[in-house]
Amino acid sequence: MKIGVIGLGLIGGSLAKALRARTPHEVWGFDRCEETLVAACASESLQGVLSFSDLSSCQVIIIALPPVACLSFLREQAAKIAPKTLVIDCCGVKRSICKVGFEAAAKHGFHFIGGHPMAGREFSGFQAAQATLFNRAVMLLIPKADEDQAVIAQAEELFLSMGFVRVMQTSAEKHDEMIAITSQLAHLVSNAYVKSPRAGQHRGFSAGSFADLTRVARLNETLWTELFLENGDFLIREIDELTASLNEYRQAIQDGDAARLCALLKAGRECKEQQDEHR
Amino acid sequence: MKIGVIGLGLIGGSLAKALRARTPHEVWGFDRCEETLVAACASESLQGVLSFSDLSSCQVIIIALPPVACLSFLREQAAKIAPKTLVIDCCGVKRSICKVGFEAAAKHGFHFIGGHPMAGREFSGFQAAQATLFNRAVMLLIPKADEDQAVIAQAEELFLSMGFVRVMQTSAEKHDEMIAITSQLAHLVSNAYVKSPRAGQHRGFSAGSFADLTRVARLNETLWTELFLENGDFLIREIDELTASLNEYRQAIQDGDAARLCALLKAGRECKEQQDEHR
Repeated sequence: MKIGVIGLGLIGGSLAKALRARTPHEVWGFDRCEETLVAACASESLQGVLSFSDLSSCQVIIIALPPVACLSFLREQAAKIAPKTLVIDCCGVKRSICKVGFEAAAKHGFHFIGGHPMAGREFSGFQAAQATLFNRAVMLLIPKADEDQAVIAQAEELFLSMGFVRVMQTSAEKHDEMIAITSQLAHLVSNAYVKSPRAGQHRGFSAGSFADLTRVARLNETLWTELFLENGDFLIREIDELTASLNEYRQAIQDGDAARLCALLKAGRECKEQQDEHR
Repeated sequence: MKIGVIGLGLIGGSLAKALRARTPHEVWGFDRCEETLVAACASESLQGVLSFSDLSSCQVIIIALPPVACLSFLREQAAKIAPKTLVIDCCGVKRSICKVGFEAAAKHGFHFIGGHPMAGREFSGFQAAQATLFNRAVMLLIPKADEDQAVIAQAEELFLSMGFVRVMQTSAEKHDEMIAITSQLAHLVSNAYVKSPRAGQHRGFSAGSFADLTRVARLNETLWTELFLENGDFLIREIDELTASLNEYRQAIQDGDAARLCALLKAGRECKEQQDEHR
């Protein structure tokens, strides 16, 4: 099977490497950056460079572009995709992408399934890509309501063959609601946390909790700007709830109210314990 | 040398185990919980149980109690400590403890040095104690301004022999200011983060960033209530700065202002990169 990977950054590069390392498929790739293409070919992550005029030769196309570029690709290149082709994206937001993807698929006769690999690193670009990035990770799939079960099964099989431990189906709405708390708020808080004027002097005074809270502060601001803006409604709700919660603790500390503060901390500890049980 | 360890929770238990595993000293321990004492003796972490009437037989006393209990110990037992004894505490706040410790030491002729081992786990109690907990960790020491250099050197040597990679001297004020951002705010944010009504459904939708942000939500609320209240001034400043910062991102998202949001994220990413360079 010929698989085209559009975008060879951290995610696309890792998918290409995983496909080459673990499956018998032909992997062809595209990136707008010439240097990345040269590096990908040199690393033998690709069979060769895919040009958009050859999109129709692929049986599967995986789009690993940031949201805005992904939407442009779907709008501008959909006519070049052969009927029956399975097209899957990897964006961290799904409502806007799936809307455009489903419409393009209906118009041109291919299958579109929204996708989001639940894995990442605090580094970006092809040089950070790893064939093992998805080992033990979950792949989220968002098919349209009446998608052919055989097509969904094909997609599931493909991702399991790359090292994903599990494929989970969800809706674009549910995905975006959940990702606001499981990923977006984490990146936002971490990015804000390191701005404390004292954080720069942490050496010697910090241990695991500081390292953990601040790890993902190192993000690709161009990508995350797009992700946050595409999911503003759900993300703002999480920001508001977190700041309201922080202010409850703040008030208890201000008041010197040990019983209230202890109750707030206990409730958080119990939430965490319940959440870990459900793993 | 006979060393007394007062309090055999995570920190005291780990110190006792590290002393027994890596040094030739005699380690005697006290805990108000009978079961913990039995477990500690059974695990051969202790030479024996130390009663307060034998405090004068110790050349070194390490107090590993929560702040309020540590203050009580210093106030109530100081008269039983022999002159010249080196007394070090392990509390996560230092202004209040050092004030009382220095006064007691001056009155009774022993040496008091404030201490804070920069290591921990998200589990508490003797059963979580590990002889290796302090490997590669920094030990912070807060001696009084005119402390005898030989006494400080003795303390440094003792902690290095337990596996600490480095001993760093600081003031109680500086310690408390820094710990508010490097540890206390991290625990507070993590504890608040897991309270999102969506967090309980994270399974399948979460990866490393959620795990990292929420790890220390599992805290001992009794201990952390004391730590937060003893350091309220510095901690409230950090909470206020973080929530103000979060609101800047929130406003940019609300306004759909990509340039502003990107600039905020870039500034955070650059802070993080600078902080990592200084490691």
